[in-house]
Amino acid sequence: MFYPEPIAKLIDSFSRLPGIGPKTAARLAFHVLRMKEEDTIDFAKALVNVKRKLTYCSVCCNITDTDPCRICSDKTRDHSVICVVQEAKDLVAMERTREFAGQYHVLHGAISPMDGVGPEDIKIAELLQRLSDERVQELILATNPNIEGEATAMYLSRLVKPFGIKVTRIAHGLPVGGDLEYADEVTLSKALEGRRELN
Amino acid sequence: MFYPEPIAKLIDSFSRLPGIGPKTAARLAFHVLRMKEEDTIDFAKALVNVKRKLTYCSVCCNITDTDPCRICSDKTRDHSVICVVQEAKDLVAMERTREFAGQYHVLHGAISPMDGVGPEDIKIAELLQRLSDERVQELILATNPNIEGEATAMYLSRLVKPFGIKVTRIAHGLPVGGDLEYADEVTLSKALEGRRELN
Repeated sequence: MFYPEPIAKLIDSFSRLPGIGPKTAARLAFHVLRMKEEDTIDFAKALVNVKRKLTYCSVCCNITDTDPCRICSDKTRDHSVICVVQEAKDLVAMERTREFAGQYHVLHGAISPMDGVGPEDIKIAELLQRLSDERVQELILATNPNIEGEATAMYLSRLVKPFGIKVTRIAHGLPVGGDLEYADEVTLSKALEGRRELN
Repeated sequence: MFYPEPIAKLIDSFSRLPGIGPKTAARLAFHVLRMKEEDTIDFAKALVNVKRKLTYCSVCCNITDTDPCRICSDKTRDHSVICVVQEAKDLVAMERTREFAGQYHVLHGAISPMDGVGPEDIKIAELLQRLSDERVQELILATNPNIEGEATAMYLSRLVKPFGIKVTRIAHGLPVGGDLEYADEVTLSKALEGRRELN
């Protein structure tokens, strides 16, 4: 109201982002005002390019700028294992471990009847199509360890069973560096349940 | 590194903003991915317009899209009082009170020898020029109540004295709704010093 219109518009755009209130939005807008013009233009281009250049990979449904994506077209990766994750961010988290060299499938959500999200709203049909590839031997369900993620994993495991493919779920337990004292009961009982023999 | 390039660039742009770390930047970038294309383009336009359409008002140095700015060119406002503030945001805070109908002058900073900011680095010369306008009768110093703001107010008050213009400083004291118990000593002693007789 008291700001010149261009800055008011930018404040409005910033405040539509999640977790950014009007005060932070104003602070960010004034920061942009002090930024170099080329940096601002880069920022604006980056915004538009994210919408224009990114698509979903036709194989794994991950976001990508090439189709199929780099992981799907990488011949050195193991095509016998598919790790199923909820979001593209989860894929990045898995890649960061550098422990997994197989394929991925990004569901873009989890089954959640409370939010009106059913199996047909997420990329399950696309996953089933991939299972006809006879190279696939194992499906690792790496959905989130919460109600929606568990429900999705359960649903998928039942759905995939007739295909004769091994279906596994990532382990629940105490986070590394965690403290037994502060662990919640559910996590602790899962950790106990999933105990392994030491050699 | 694991993200497709367009989204990596956007994450980078977001994480250059103050108070936004890499995780928040990624969250915001993924939010943009889900935004409507027209909203994203509006956001990009707003960024560029802030740099292209805004200038400093040639009179009060406030940021503006018209020169002179709306306040300076508003004939209904009182031209005998100039309220000196550090930043454009402070001007907006003053306007929000709806108690002040005079002119402003935005310094764009405060004198701070520690940060290498001297009187010539802020808009003091521009302020002195305005004092030759014989309509000006009072200068209200509304710089921040911290070391830099006080130093700037002190400097300005000495500088302006020869012009024969009344120079005032906004009051220090307890914030409204504040608690005496939690007030720091300096604020409390300022509040005591600035006490006023009740009618």
